[in-house]
Amino acid sequence: MKSEVEEAVLGRIRPRPPEQQEVLGVAEEIIGAVNLSGRAEAMLVGSVARGTWVRGDRDLDIFMLYDPALPREALEEEGLGLARDVAKRFGTDWREKYAEHPYINATIRGMDVDLVPCYRVASGAEIRSAVDRTPFHTRYIRERIAPFVEDVLLLKQFTKAGGVYGSDQMTEGFAGYLCELLVLHYRGFTPLVEAAARWRPGLFIDLEGHAAKSFDDPMVVIDPVDPKRNVAASVSISKMFAFVELCRGYLAAPSENFFFPPPVAPFTLEEFGVEVARRGTHLFAVSFETPPFIPDVVVPQLRRSLEGMRALLERSGFVVNRAEEAMGEERCLLLFELFSREMPAVVRHIGPPVWSRSNAEKFAGKWRECERFAGPYIEDGRYIVEVERKYTHAADLLASPEVLGVGLGKHVKKAMEKEWVVLEGLECWSPEFAGFLTTFLQKETPLTRVLRARTE
Amino acid sequence: MKSEVEEAVLGRIRPRPPEQQEVLGVAEEIIGAVNLSGRAEAMLVGSVARGTWVRGDRDLDIFMLYDPALPREALEEEGLGLARDVAKRFGTDWREKYAEHPYINATIRGMDVDLVPCYRVASGAEIRSAVDRTPFHTRYIRERIAPFVEDVLLLKQFTKAGGVYGSDQMTEGFAGYLCELLVLHYRGFTPLVEAAARWRPGLFIDLEGHAAKSFDDPMVVIDPVDPKRNVAASVSISKMFAFVELCRGYLAAPSENFFFPPPVAPFTLEEFGVEVARRGTHLFAVSFETPPFIPDVVVPQLRRSLEGMRALLERSGFVVNRAEEAMGEERCLLLFELFSREMPAVVRHIGPPVWSRSNAEKFAGKWRECERFAGPYIEDGRYIVEVERKYTHAADLLASPEVLGVGLGKHVKKAMEKEWVVLEGLECWSPEFAGFLTTFLQKETPLTRVLRARTE
Repeated sequence: MKSEVEEAVLGRIRPRPPEQQEVLGVAEEIIGAVNLSGRAEAMLVGSVARGTWVRGDRDLDIFMLYDPALPREALEEEGLGLARDVAKRFGTDWREKYAEHPYINATIRGMDVDLVPCYRVASGAEIRSAVDRTPFHTRYIRERIAPFVEDVLLLKQFTKAGGVYGSDQMTEGFAGYLCELLVLHYRGFTPLVEAAARWRPGLFIDLEGHAAKSFDDPMVVIDPVDPKRNVAASVSISKMFAFVELCRGYLAAPSENFFFPPPVAPFTLEEFGVEVARRGTHLFAVSFETPPFIPDVVVPQLRRSLEGMRALLERSGFVVNRAEEAMGEERCLLLFELFSREMPAVVRHIGPPVWSRSNAEKFAGKWRECERFAGPYIEDGRYIVEVERKYTHAADLLASPEVLGVGLGKHVKKAMEKEWVVLEGLECWSPEFAGFLTTFLQKETPLTRVLRARTE
Repeated sequence: MKSEVEEAVLGRIRPRPPEQQEVLGVAEEIIGAVNLSGRAEAMLVGSVARGTWVRGDRDLDIFMLYDPALPREALEEEGLGLARDVAKRFGTDWREKYAEHPYINATIRGMDVDLVPCYRVASGAEIRSAVDRTPFHTRYIRERIAPFVEDVLLLKQFTKAGGVYGSDQMTEGFAGYLCELLVLHYRGFTPLVEAAARWRPGLFIDLEGHAAKSFDDPMVVIDPVDPKRNVAASVSISKMFAFVELCRGYLAAPSENFFFPPPVAPFTLEEFGVEVARRGTHLFAVSFETPPFIPDVVVPQLRRSLEGMRALLERSGFVVNRAEEAMGEERCLLLFELFSREMPAVVRHIGPPVWSRSNAEKFAGKWRECERFAGPYIEDGRYIVEVERKYTHAADLLASPEVLGVGLGKHVKKAMEKEWVVLEGLECWSPEFAGFLTTFLQKETPLTRVLRARTE
């Protein structure tokens, strides 16, 4: 039932028996230890629990279910305490991490293990926080997924290769659970791909036919376990259609490239310079220290700050072709590609309609007292004066205090209040951001990249 | 009843008795000659007939009224024949001119005399062409204007000084007849100025209360002699409000400057260069041979061509601050002030929404075969490709054949099909256009100029 290409791909991504044994063995040990403590009931969740994990994924998610009667603080104290014990006992190192609530992440026998306390609630409708839902997800999938495990593996690999896998803020793509639900709904990878080729925004899927809310998102997949939740809320319209495009391309000409894309060699500084010169545009970057928070917190703020600065540039006369954000280990980069880096001394300042007598007289009277290039004059019934432009160089504008007033995210603003640097042209390049800059200059959909690789 | 300023002004613009005698004398002679021929009835029309002519105006308008039964060709043949006879007998030289129909213009005793054949129709509603209305205008005004002659002189001088006098296509201002009607309606210069300070677009004046049609013009003054005609149709909204602004300024601080504006010294080539450099903008002009037609025909075509070229520049990425046209004796100039003279090699080309499957596949498929800088990529749900910009220099665009395709006026297109030149910066300057260029760079309302003169 699977095509030749798909069989070949499965041959590369199915977990091998020794690997399966190892992973499940570690899971069993940890579960045993948690259950033995008598304090919580351990449950293996995630793709390992559902059998839908891809070769090389060494992620274990172990949830520790507690009595819902326990107060939140006690849950955290006990749960984290237990998790730390387990981590110390089995692991080489561990750390506390934060999503909606704290949990422990440990490295155990080379595996990345999340130990997460949650409430054992009676149904999906009674959850106190997102993690309480996970056991229900796991059960729902495990009860249905058996005939479609390989379809899920294919879909995960396909979406990963296309850069649309992952519901984090950076990726804005398909979560693993979403992939499983789509495969269940369409009953396989192939029917899914055929249907997706025809998707339109406003797609609505409701496996249990129980939606209790409406959504504005371009893609809606109602959680079978929670009628008020859209599992596909994380999918941006761009990523939804990058996926649609990939499906169309795959149907037209299937190949392993759709599952294992050729790597993009990042530009060297020299190649970067050549490409920028060829484009004839002007690159500017605002660079500042990365705020000490997880990407899911920082990235949305970077995007908001980016849009704010873009609007500032545009209303100051600098036309922005593209803008993208990048979050590095030490520094963040807000990158702008401008069509013009300099504007003339003159700028128009548009006033009120001339027939609005008191406004008009105030405006004209005021400006006749000021230094100006021309005006007031009347154009299309409004007063116009031509005055000195405040910033004639984009670099000066980006280095000015105006940047702090554009609706920056809270953490971004704090970082910038310490310092920020304006980089221009080749200055924007660094080894850390070489990949980001390369993708920026060669912006193309995942399908375009796959097709280009075929011809090269 | 007139203020000190107004009395002083009147002292300078009232025609003196010797002048009056001379002008009326010549009129009498010509009228006598026409009537003597027995072929037509002569009538003195225009400002001389109404007594509302300003000192130094040496314009005579003599209409020759014919029987409405006469066919148009015979009217023209006879009328022009008679006019030529008169011109040859009394004048030093003469020429045939054209408005709606041909007429004779002659220089007689140093005066500029129009000899115009028209029909003697029974009422304003039965006119065959615009000239047939003129006798009715003359009678209407003569019967009412006596108490307000000096108010009309003041208004004419005020509007001339403010550059808003004249209903021709170039000026887009107030005709003499309109000035007379406004003075009649408001019963004097001062009440008119006080009312005009509060004018709003959609002003509606109907002296005879007989309007038989509605108009979209910003200023509507129904012809007392023709209920379907707006005498103020020629007034552009900019000129209407230049006048409003002057009235407000005059009320706030009356002075003779409102009637006799100080001359504007045109820039020398050097001063022009200094001002352009100061502004930091980029001047470009399209120059071609002036089409052999009167301004009222050529100027609207220049304006249409100007707007067409402006739109071409803007959709090609060159931001236009201002654009103006000038009609010289030999050459016409279409002048553009740009904020940028060069654009980068990259230009965005926006495609269809990705979900429109067949359009999207066609677009993406086509562009993947082409040379391009980046893309196709998806932005806000649409495909975008970045391609080579056709014209990166404004001068090249203005010199290209694209210019011929922008909706040029018929005569402008003909002239440009012969040749046109693109001028840049200082090249735009010439002695003939020095005044035009000076006013362009120092664009300001007439009131602003008056107030500036006061302080200098």
